Amino acid sequence: MRKILDDFDDINKIDINKVKEMSLEELEQFSKEIRTFLIQNVSKTGGHLASNLGVVELTLSLYNVFDFNKDKLIWDVGHQSYVHKILTGRKNQFETLKQYGGLSGFPKRSESPYDHFETGHSSTSISAALGMARARDLKKENFEVVAVIGDGALTGGMALEALNDAGDRKSKMIIILNDNQMSIDPNVGGLSEYLGRLRVEPGYNRLKQDVESVLNKIPNIGKGMAKTLERIKNGIKQMVVPGMLFENMGIKYFGPIDGHDIKELSRTLKKAREIDEPVLIHVITKKGKGYSFAECNPGKFHGVGPFDCKNGEMNGGKSLSYSKAFGDSMVKIGKENKKVVAITAAMKDSTGLKEFGDKFKERLFDVGIAEQHAVTLAAGMASQGLKPVFAVYSTFLQRAYDQILHDVCIQNLPVIFAIDRAGLVGGDGETHQGVFDLSYLCQMPNMTIMAPKRANEIEYMLRWALKENSPVAIRYPRGGDNNINYTSLKDFKKGKWEVLEEDGDIVIIAVGKMINQALLVREKLLNSGIKVGIINAVFVKPLDEELLKDLCYKGKKIITLEDNILNGGFGSTVLSFVNGLNKNNKVVNLGFKDVFVPHGSVDLLFKIHGLDVDGIIQSILKVL
Amino acid sequence: MRKILDDFDDINKIDINKVKEMSLEELEQFSKEIRTFLIQNVSKTGGHLASNLGVVELTLSLYNVFDFNKDKLIWDVGHQSYVHKILTGRKNQFETLKQYGGLSGFPKRSESPYDHFETGHSSTSISAALGMARARDLKKENFEVVAVIGDGALTGGMALEALNDAGDRKSKMIIILNDNQMSIDPNVGGLSEYLGRLRVEPGYNRLKQDVESVLNKIPNIGKGMAKTLERIKNGIKQMVVPGMLFENMGIKYFGPIDGHDIKELSRTLKKAREIDEPVLIHVITKKGKGYSFAECNPGKFHGVGPFDCKNGEMNGGKSLSYSKAFGDSMVKIGKENKKVVAITAAMKDSTGLKEFGDKFKERLFDVGIAEQHAVTLAAGMASQGLKPVFAVYSTFLQRAYDQILHDVCIQNLPVIFAIDRAGLVGGDGETHQGVFDLSYLCQMPNMTIMAPKRANEIEYMLRWALKENSPVAIRYPRGGDNNINYTSLKDFKKGKWEVLEEDGDIVIIAVGKMINQALLVREKLLNSGIKVGIINAVFVKPLDEELLKDLCYKGKKIITLEDNILNGGFGSTVLSFVNGLNKNNKVVNLGFKDVFVPHGSVDLLFKIHGLDVDGIIQSILKVL
Repeated sequence: MRKILDDFDDINKIDINKVKEMSLEELEQFSKEIRTFLIQNVSKTGGHLASNLGVVELTLSLYNVFDFNKDKLIWDVGHQSYVHKILTGRKNQFETLKQYGGLSGFPKRSESPYDHFETGHSSTSISAALGMARARDLKKENFEVVAVIGDGALTGGMALEALNDAGDRKSKMIIILNDNQMSIDPNVGGLSEYLGRLRVEPGYNRLKQDVESVLNKIPNIGKGMAKTLERIKNGIKQMVVPGMLFENMGIKYFGPIDGHDIKELSRTLKKAREIDEPVLIHVITKKGKGYSFAECNPGKFHGVGPFDCKNGEMNGGKSLSYSKAFGDSMVKIGKENKKVVAITAAMKDSTGLKEFGDKFKERLFDVGIAEQHAVTLAAGMASQGLKPVFAVYSTFLQRAYDQILHDVCIQNLPVIFAIDRAGLVGGDGETHQGVFDLSYLCQMPNMTIMAPKRANEIEYMLRWALKENSPVAIRYPRGGDNNINYTSLKDFKKGKWEVLEEDGDIVIIAVGKMINQALLVREKLLNSGIKVGIINAVFVKPLDEELLKDLCYKGKKIITLEDNILNGGFGSTVLSFVNGLNKNNKVVNLGFKDVFVPHGSVDLLFKIHGLDVDGIIQSILKVL
Repeated sequence: MRKILDDFDDINKIDINKVKEMSLEELEQFSKEIRTFLIQNVSKTGGHLASNLGVVELTLSLYNVFDFNKDKLIWDVGHQSYVHKILTGRKNQFETLKQYGGLSGFPKRSESPYDHFETGHSSTSISAALGMARARDLKKENFEVVAVIGDGALTGGMALEALNDAGDRKSKMIIILNDNQMSIDPNVGGLSEYLGRLRVEPGYNRLKQDVESVLNKIPNIGKGMAKTLERIKNGIKQMVVPGMLFENMGIKYFGPIDGHDIKELSRTLKKAREIDEPVLIHVITKKGKGYSFAECNPGKFHGVGPFDCKNGEMNGGKSLSYSKAFGDSMVKIGKENKKVVAITAAMKDSTGLKEFGDKFKERLFDVGIAEQHAVTLAAGMASQGLKPVFAVYSTFLQRAYDQILHDVCIQNLPVIFAIDRAGLVGGDGETHQGVFDLSYLCQMPNMTIMAPKRANEIEYMLRWALKENSPVAIRYPRGGDNNINYTSLKDFKKGKWEVLEEDGDIVIIAVGKMINQALLVREKLLNSGIKVGIINAVFVKPLDEELLKDLCYKGKKIITLEDNILNGGFGSTVLSFVNGLNKNNKVVNLGFKDVFVPHGSVDLLFKIHGLDVDGIIQSILKVL
């Protein structure tokens, strides 16, 4: 049977407005085809599944009503843009999803003219859309701007900043609140509860009807009474509408409506299009819709690797993951020390905190997608003697740069940052590669930065950090344990490194998982008769100045190796220190150059950036 | 006549609870004394005046009701903490306000045990207070936590993140919304309009009375009718209360009340203290209250230098300030190029944009205290062909680190950052010294960073940046023009530096206002027969690699000089580049070490950190 989907094969011949001409039946048929396509493809390539299954009808309705040849569409985060990618001719690229040079899992302007703005982190879409709307108005152009934002992303501060601003000049724009009651984890907070009430309350219409029905039954209305009635009506009109919270910010509210009902969606979108000011449409969707395994467990099917699409089973990682090692450590330590509390920004499961939360419910604080607040909340807790551990991905923590610097570091408060997904993450690309954290943390006075060479060292690093009376960051990579045969460290002395191999004129000082790489380099060079020493930079900050001095006085050549950018990173601080010694030791800094690292497999990306074993060897041979 | 104020002279004998024992008359008398003290002292030392005059009664009421020997008080931003400082025994230190080693203009934990949390940037207090409240609950301790936040600061995203989280577990805490309708500039946005409506609307009580009066006049109530009535009452109760926006987030709302009425304030604070969940008290105050010149012009009297307290007249700066040069340039350029728009985060006047806003109202966007949103809004505008210029202070921009990196730099969008108050600002201390921007911007791929040596170069840098199709940051210091006798640059080539003085084996490469310092160093060393070349690092990024190579091949010793931290700063990128050339040139990086720079005069701070003329000379002599 011919599929509607087949019309969307060719990116060069794409006519997105085909969707406008489809009947309701065709759109519904199309939804089914897209769902099947998504499940089959993502089960092979991995990717974001649940979020995309949730927006099939919404995306079709948007294309049914708007003309994105001129209108603009901004997907918040962007991990729900697969349907949009299919409709804009990228269906046949899905087999390359998240691979180097292949389809990105997020909107990319270089990939399609229909990707109007790139996203990756949460809560940016309203700001970007408002910028576009204001540009349109100033340039006296004529197009619609639509931002699609999840209820989770809406708790991110900048989304609320943007709502506040949108309510100011009232530029025409449409905000779709895609309410699936989830971020990656179920949503939390006052706003989420509020949306919950909106979903179930009869709201404005019912109340208005009630009031009118009562008023109609009043027999004699004197003059004073009429005035009172008028006041009541106005009062209610002004004050009792569903979505008051948004109306109070100056944003018109429509909804809530069923996000899987294409007819209702299209009708509401058309209505919203007619309104000359900011409108928010509250759409209720189900994450994972149409795939029972994902519906039942949307968190598990948020971002997935390949899985068996018949039974939804995934291949678990074989070795202990760093996230799990962190989670297990927190449970152990949490049992022993009641002052230890954990904070997460809507990522309890993915950071490994689930069990801690199950065991110590009152000591796990999920603050929603709100990294800035998370950090200052931790500072407040630390100021009162608690021992807060904020578990967060490397690139998400950068949203709280100011709060780490001011609220934690200036006051030198003992907040622990457990930084997951540091270094390359691979398929999620530019916005998720954790290659900036060493640079932005190294520049903060009072900050200590540690990196484990094995996953099980996280526990001992946490224990050490708990005794420190100052901020400590422990950064570790995505994925499984480093397979190296050295004893795990259990004791630490601030700024003391670990010498793993001493011989040779050249020494590699490596950070975290890069030690694995360094050891492979050593092995390979030994075969060519070249001896290379290996040092584990347990502390990225402060440096082991004594050891560095010793190396320099011995005339060693120093290679630093980190999965971070070179600008302002570990190596640059080593170079500065060595330069100050005036011993003219050769220092070579290896890490990422001054570019963004796109999506692709971690191994391939290392190779491309000269950080695979052969690339490192080449850099070393140049020094010799 | 003996003053009440005299009882607060001695920090060692202070009894804060004296305020609890005062009669209303005494409190009112005390208010007057405090106001006079503030006006007289700040007129001599400079400092924040208007914000402190606005909270005299509020602070007294807080001390009247709470016991801050155990209860915690967090001042958002902290520039309104002078009255609190007086009450906690620091009255006699006011003559040292903002001086090195003297009284800080913000809460400092090292200064007093009553400064429970340090602040400086906006919108952090609710997060910190919530952290304290949760720590208290977990540790089963018993104290109150009060956060005082302005209506301007409330539009900062992290404050809204915190409100959302506070509504979640409902920890007992009190938030005082100090509503003076101002941040530094008058407030903007949907939230501000909402607060405006709260101030004037009769609200819940009136509406409830109206409805009841109508209902009472209905003669026959059938069973169905009774049910309808019940529904109406509940509907209204649930949905029509003043402060709905806060109630919707799960925060109890009290107010609005007069923030200069000690009796009413004390009564409401006591009531709020009895409630076991988060409460927000909406307090209306007048910025500058009690000093007519400040009441009429609170923006002017926000942060001031010394002034004549009889007529409110200030000594204007003598030379063209960088802010004014920027503002004048924007007016000129805005006339010529309609695509140029300006964005400010609640600081139109202080960044120099007032005239631009007067002339091109529709092209000046004040987004409120919302730096994250400001940056992504600019990115959205740039994506549609506008030329946005975000004028912002150096340390405030750091709140948008993630947005600059992701929303601007990844997409390589032509957003211009006009970064004022870069380098030392002096009296405002740690949180305001702009010594991190070069580090956090240098690490961002696609970012170009420029620094003018004279104020009038800003215009030409803006003109150059407008032609670039990528992000450009122009960073300049607080205060007046550099008085140096070199022609201003009007033309730029990306990454090309300006050689000011060529001779000598040593060359100083200096950034922005540090060129002044470098020239003085040159002059002084010339007297000792030592020749020093001077290069103006017009572009901090990218480096002038050709010139650097040339210097290295000529065997020059290189001194970099910047008013930024050394970690990850300009000098560190120069060192990395030179190191890669393998020519063994001596490089010395001068800038701030890895510490926070406290408040004090800029000259003194330079001296302490070895960046005054003599300090620099000493560093140079060490190399020779």
